[in-house]
Amino acid sequence: MSQPVKQARFNLFIYGAGHHQAAWRAPDSPAERLGETAYYVELAQVAERGLLDGVFLADGQAVAPEAAAAGPTWFFEPFTLLSALSQHTSRIGLVCTVSSSFYTPFHAARMLASLDRLSGGRAGANVVTSMWDAEAQNHGRETLGDHAYRYGRADEFITVLRQLFGSHPAAAVQADREGVFTDPNQLSRIDHAGEHFGVRGPLNIPDGPQGAPVLFQAGASAQGRELAAAHAEAIYAVAADRQMALDYAQDVRSRAAAAGRDPQALAIMPGLVAYVGRTLEEAKDKQRRLNDLLPIEQALAQLAVFVQQDTHAWELDAPVPPLPSAAEFTGPAGRYATILRLIEIHQPTVRELLGLLAAGGGHCTVVGTPEMIADEIELWLDTGAADGFNLMPPNLPDGLADFVELVIPELQRRGRFRTAYEHRTLRGHLGLPMPVAGGALAQAR
Amino acid sequence: MSQPVKQARFNLFIYGAGHHQAAWRAPDSPAERLGETAYYVELAQVAERGLLDGVFLADGQAVAPEAAAAGPTWFFEPFTLLSALSQHTSRIGLVCTVSSSFYTPFHAARMLASLDRLSGGRAGANVVTSMWDAEAQNHGRETLGDHAYRYGRADEFITVLRQLFGSHPAAAVQADREGVFTDPNQLSRIDHAGEHFGVRGPLNIPDGPQGAPVLFQAGASAQGRELAAAHAEAIYAVAADRQMALDYAQDVRSRAAAAGRDPQALAIMPGLVAYVGRTLEEAKDKQRRLNDLLPIEQALAQLAVFVQQDTHAWELDAPVPPLPSAAEFTGPAGRYATILRLIEIHQPTVRELLGLLAAGGGHCTVVGTPEMIADEIELWLDTGAADGFNLMPPNLPDGLADFVELVIPELQRRGRFRTAYEHRTLRGHLGLPMPVAGGALAQAR
Ligand SMILES: Cc1cc2nc3c(=O)[nH]c(=O)nc-3n(C[C@H](O)[C@H](O)[C@H](O)COP(=O)(O)O)c2cc1C
Ligand SMILES: Cc1cc2nc3c(=O)[nH]c(=O)nc-3n(C[C@H](O)[C@H](O)[C@H](O)COP(=O)(O)O)c2cc1C
Repeated sequence: MSQPVKQARFNLFIYGAGHHQAAWRAPDSPAERLGETAYYVELAQVAERGLLDGVFLADGQAVAPEAAAAGPTWFFEPFTLLSALSQHTSRIGLVCTVSSSFYTPFHAARMLASLDRLSGGRAGANVVTSMWDAEAQNHGRETLGDHAYRYGRADEFITVLRQLFGSHPAAAVQADREGVFTDPNQLSRIDHAGEHFGVRGPLNIPDGPQGAPVLFQAGASAQGRELAAAHAEAIYAVAADRQMALDYAQDVRSRAAAAGRDPQALAIMPGLVAYVGRTLEEAKDKQRRLNDLLPIEQALAQLAVFVQQDTHAWELDAPVPPLPSAAEFTGPAGRYATILRLIEIHQPTVRELLGLLAAGGGHCTVVGTPEMIADEIELWLDTGAADGFNLMPPNLPDGLADFVELVIPELQRRGRFRTAYEHRTLRGHLGLPMPVAGGALAQAR
Repeated sequence: MSQPVKQARFNLFIYGAGHHQAAWRAPDSPAERLGETAYYVELAQVAERGLLDGVFLADGQAVAPEAAAAGPTWFFEPFTLLSALSQHTSRIGLVCTVSSSFYTPFHAARMLASLDRLSGGRAGANVVTSMWDAEAQNHGRETLGDHAYRYGRADEFITVLRQLFGSHPAAAVQADREGVFTDPNQLSRIDHAGEHFGVRGPLNIPDGPQGAPVLFQAGASAQGRELAAAHAEAIYAVAADRQMALDYAQDVRSRAAAAGRDPQALAIMPGLVAYVGRTLEEAKDKQRRLNDLLPIEQALAQLAVFVQQDTHAWELDAPVPPLPSAAEFTGPAGRYATILRLIEIHQPTVRELLGLLAAGGGHCTVVGTPEMIADEIELWLDTGAADGFNLMPPNLPDGLADFVELVIPELQRRGRFRTAYEHRTLRGHLGLPMPVAGGALAQAR
């Protein structure tokens, strides 16, 4: 018997005018529309026409004036925006990034259950631990706390979320006109008293159609991977190329197995920045045109900080000069390793390196025809490097339209992507089982 | 020159199957639909067809199993539900109750600004201090804290909200393709360091069309009135009759004047439970039919607790037996005073008293023809007892339809209600000025 081929999963990660930092500077960019609901509605509807699994929103709890000067940061708060988008779409998932460092689990669980109901079972949560002390300072703390503290809190946060979902099952609502509205015996307190949170329960909203919204995780350190292995149903991962993705996937799946979970029941979705053209030259040209919009002085100055060298003498259209190895480097290691990797993978000119860093940073960048990109995606799927991708179009809406109009049909021709939605819930699209409190896992709807 | 007559303002307070506790038990009630988005969309659209100023949602952070058994409590979280409703309406305001006891001001300000953008300038916030320790226990605290603590926190909460709105003005967003996206000089930190909150700012969303969402307050104690006088632009008040409303309004307006504010720039909107019929008999019949749905044993038992008497021997269809004066009563004073007042105003039978308590409690109940109700509303407006009402239909959707189809046209004939929306924002509908950071108040849009 032949194995059915593995199909891809895709979220659309919506961010400003696209994931390339300079995309908003293009003459035809939607720069003026980023504060309008309709812009996001249109993107979500294009993604839904493309049959994507979900729309994905990142989040942050502060704005740095320098960052806001350089390009779009936030306009809408993601729970409220996704609630609005739920009313303009009917099938696509809606994944909301939620910081375990700044929400109480009760607020988060309630918002997520409410979004799940509003959307008819399409909510997902991407739990992150946040990044900047400036965020903490907007919520009454001086610092974020160290890695161990944040991940301890994240683990407890997710544990409580999972208990709150199920504490007020939808079946408890009986609306029996001669008897009870809600069967009080089906409501349960959770009486959580932990290091970070105290939560009595039950949740004050009956579970939505998915039982519990789909739980994503993003965060790449060892602690992040442990959290994903213990709890996540899907992961927004970061990998500059297939080898890194494979290493990551193998590591997380073995951690999941060690935690007693089915390692294949995790949907691993790395970020993907795709420049798509009908010809390779057209694709490269799209990338070049975005790179040309970068304010080059600023980008070079930023690079100088990352690599701790005087970059101003570097020839923009020549290959990046040789750099010291990671072992010899004394500055922040993570970003430097990413830069070395990008140079190794792409052999870029200085200008191209600035462009790669400006669009997605350490995430995988592909440039090519639909066939070339589909080949690459197939390879990732078949080697176990990924189950799908969090699409990060360099420019919006055009980069999304290119993917939906050119790459998706190519994948469909190859049997690698659905040709119609087969489910009504995000859980269904991703092929994840329903969580059932205290029982076996039910079939995905 | 003749004075233009004062026009009424109305919010629709959406709650379950209506504000009568037994409304969901009616054979034709929407009891099965309370978890469906479409039910709320329909109500908001009827309210908008009726040209009402706003839709109003209460909120709470816990569910008591006994309360859930007796009738609908919460389904949707209000920020997410109002965000969804914003996409199905275009003019009506969207007022979200927010507890200063459980949100950080940064979260609240951001959600409100986001809702204001999603709705094109229709957001309002009803700041409350919450009611039950069970709510605190869902957010890591044992108790709510005493009145003074809660109102101290509420005052600081609103102070910070007002600073956050304005910290990221919409005009800062320039989208200048050759220059900056956001002018960093227009962003300002607020650097609030108070007893309850530490907030650095700026807010990470540019202000919505209203500059700041309209600030409502609800809370009737002396501290609640002080808070309203200091900060509120509109008030959801509670008054069993016109005299109580008048006393309340005079008190709050004189507190506002003492705080240096224009006492007339406050929109005072008491709750109103209206039973509307084409004849008085029809209106009374509607009330009777809802009262007849009350599980009488439970209601009597509850009343026994409130009045500390054995109510089981009381004749249901006879007048309420004489009760000790408030001075002689040793139990909780507030509820008892309300009951004495209801008896004085309505001279009810025991069954009728149970019905009054079950629908709106201490709020004003009117039963009559559109003409009678319009007369009463005119009297409240002209004597300064109210600027409008928070409508609490005893049953939904029918009680709303009655008001919109019968009372609104009568008020329009009398020049007491708009015949078309004249503004696009809630601030505009309510006739409130735009807040302008550090400057004079601009015209309402
Ligand atoms: C792919 C990816 C996406 C992330 N998205 C967000 C986000 O939207 N908001 C946020 O506050 N943090 C985000 N994070 C940050 C993580 O939550 C985490 O705080 C940070 O990466 C440090 O943890 P780590 O060392 O485990 O990666 C993201 C991290 C990764 C790897
Ligand atoms: C008319 C009115 C409506 C209220 N609505 C809410 C509400 O929706 N949610 C809530 O937690 N508290 C609500 N409250 C409670 C108040 O915020 C406050 O906590 C409580 O009334 C005690 O304060 P007080 O003594 O000043 O009234 C409301 C109070 C009043 C008077």
